[in-house]
Amino acid sequence: MAFSERVTRLKSSLIREILAAAQRPEVMSFAGGLPAEAMLPAIEWAGMPACMGQYGPSEGEPALRELLAAEARAQGIACQASQVLVLSGSQQALDLAAKLYIDTGTEVVLEGPTYLAALQTFQLFGAQCLSVPVTRDGPDLAALRRQFEQHAPAFAYLIPTFQNPSGVRYSEAVRGQVAALLDEFGVTLIEDEPYRELTYDGVMAAPIAGRLRQASWIYTGTVSKTLLPGLRVGYLIASPDLFPHLLRLKQAADLHTNRLGQWQAMQWLGTQQYREHLARLRDFYRERRDAMQQALLQHFTDLADWHVPQGGLFFWLTLKQPIDTRTLLAAAMAQDVAFMPGEPFFADPAANPGCLRLNFSHVAPHRLHEGLSRLAQVIRQAQAAQAAA
Amino acid sequence: MAFSERVTRLKSSLIREILAAAQRPEVMSFAGGLPAEAMLPAIEWAGMPACMGQYGPSEGEPALRELLAAEARAQGIACQASQVLVLSGSQQALDLAAKLYIDTGTEVVLEGPTYLAALQTFQLFGAQCLSVPVTRDGPDLAALRRQFEQHAPAFAYLIPTFQNPSGVRYSEAVRGQVAALLDEFGVTLIEDEPYRELTYDGVMAAPIAGRLRQASWIYTGTVSKTLLPGLRVGYLIASPDLFPHLLRLKQAADLHTNRLGQWQAMQWLGTQQYREHLARLRDFYRERRDAMQQALLQHFTDLADWHVPQGGLFFWLTLKQPIDTRTLLAAAMAQDVAFMPGEPFFADPAANPGCLRLNFSHVAPHRLHEGLSRLAQVIRQAQAAQAAA
Repeated sequence: MAFSERVTRLKSSLIREILAAAQRPEVMSFAGGLPAEAMLPAIEWAGMPACMGQYGPSEGEPALRELLAAEARAQGIACQASQVLVLSGSQQALDLAAKLYIDTGTEVVLEGPTYLAALQTFQLFGAQCLSVPVTRDGPDLAALRRQFEQHAPAFAYLIPTFQNPSGVRYSEAVRGQVAALLDEFGVTLIEDEPYRELTYDGVMAAPIAGRLRQASWIYTGTVSKTLLPGLRVGYLIASPDLFPHLLRLKQAADLHTNRLGQWQAMQWLGTQQYREHLARLRDFYRERRDAMQQALLQHFTDLADWHVPQGGLFFWLTLKQPIDTRTLLAAAMAQDVAFMPGEPFFADPAANPGCLRLNFSHVAPHRLHEGLSRLAQVIRQAQAAQAAA
Repeated sequence: MAFSERVTRLKSSLIREILAAAQRPEVMSFAGGLPAEAMLPAIEWAGMPACMGQYGPSEGEPALRELLAAEARAQGIACQASQVLVLSGSQQALDLAAKLYIDTGTEVVLEGPTYLAALQTFQLFGAQCLSVPVTRDGPDLAALRRQFEQHAPAFAYLIPTFQNPSGVRYSEAVRGQVAALLDEFGVTLIEDEPYRELTYDGVMAAPIAGRLRQASWIYTGTVSKTLLPGLRVGYLIASPDLFPHLLRLKQAADLHTNRLGQWQAMQWLGTQQYREHLARLRDFYRERRDAMQQALLQHFTDLADWHVPQGGLFFWLTLKQPIDTRTLLAAAMAQDVAFMPGEPFFADPAANPGCLRLNFSHVAPHRLHEGLSRLAQVIRQAQAAQAAA
């Protein structure tokens, strides 16, 4: 049996295991990032042309590419439909970017913490992951400059809006400074924005990609958080120097994205119906976030520090008394509570103990206090045991 | 700009360019492998549960996995649903297999000729592609043994049933002997069967995967040739030692396959409606194949040799007077005729001049003679010019 070298870096996915365990209906799960079932819109199929059953272009449906380009231009990204590549979910952007850039040992810059599946994909391809701490306004700019000065990273992978897992939204000033640094050092930007539309306090900020003057860039998004994840329709928009390579890599990966999902996405994007759906979605999630904040204040004030996220789906808690939160999982699951340990969101988990990611959209409101109370109890007991040891 | 080393191996796809040029309605295209539009079945959506809009399991829908496993068992492959991985089209099986096995320089065995996109995907990942000539009954067994004796290939990628592009169907005897060789040398089999159900003369043969006693295997198929390619639903079935790795690679690639297409596939597989659809499909394609054979006899008897394919979508012609058929493309396109040159289907194109792949399902019957007549004329002129030079 001779597998490739990369298979030795193929980790069992902690998320997979936790989510599988959290499937039991009695489990109160703060672990996943699933949209609320109640808010999945009903879809209509009337009018879909029969040709959507045929093979389609690798680039994606022309009309969908136009809609996505128009949406990006409205966000300040100067682009044409010819730069839009429709993907089988935005996870595929990570796979294509890894193929485009990463050989064994290739250096890349990520936020610490960052999106777990991005970290795993880049590491699978052999990347050397360099971290920049995330502060309340965005990445630590001095640390970012230092990484650019001391290394030659192939790209910087950033999630500037309602970052997963930290919930951080880069300020306007920081966005401009990050863009300037990328331009200064000629580092390609990969900007991942799945949560942009899930904004609850009226705050918005234009993408970093639109602020670049020289650096190459890939901007990626999805309809999974606003419409239906089951469609598996995401997209990337790339600077013209990168697009032809990404297109060929997409074709080699799966020929093209399924056309049923693309057609559905086309029925929504840019419509009044979509705007109304987004407004309802924001109201729903805002209410859940606020309820979570109240419950956290009651059960976690003495245990952890956190900021109220202005968007996205997660609270990010930092324990006042650090403990490897992976060690809490078994006890929490025994209490029918699931959560996501924070350590795996860092390139160096052992050096970053004591954070938890808690989703606020899934647990039913009437079980919220019970769930958080049990989780707090698990933490208290573990910390007491640690102190006694 | 520092791309990965693999990007230097990212070829512009000749197929892409030919197919794009063949889009013009006046072009008579023998180039692609698209199902006939007239035979795409109408699909119904009534009864699809709302949860199909939510994230789904990376493995695929449980009920679909059961159906696919049952179908494979009926073909002699002893397997369980737990070994089935639903894919975003069977092209994805090539991507996942490449990730699982191929480092730069990894040796793999393929048929010569073989599926162009497989060759490109394996080469993209850095494979050293070793070829075994395809004879009328399957691969040259002595050559296959020699490759296994002289090299240590990570796998053998084979298309035993209505091979693309050659149309060859391995005989029963050859299937058994290939299985025995794979077992003897412990070489993993990747068996690709997109065309199995497109059989026109009543011939069938059980997969090689079901004949193995020791070697690991991946068997891959799709609903693209029998239902709707736009669904982007394919699958692989793997021996239990390989499955967990392939599952994790699938998750890293795109989380899971779109659920709309999976649900559609579930409505058809194993039903009487599907069997009736397949029967109509075979009648339709058989008629087109027979018409093509008649037209070829008229226009190509003096130019080329070929066998009538018993299934699939292609004739494979070998010119009596070899010429690099890539050089014929421009002249053919100027005559509004598209075809697929044979050279790119070989790991060593320059050493294998003079073959053409002609699809028989796409060109309308009333234009068939005109298209083949023009193509024959282009070949005659090129050969005359070559002889005069």
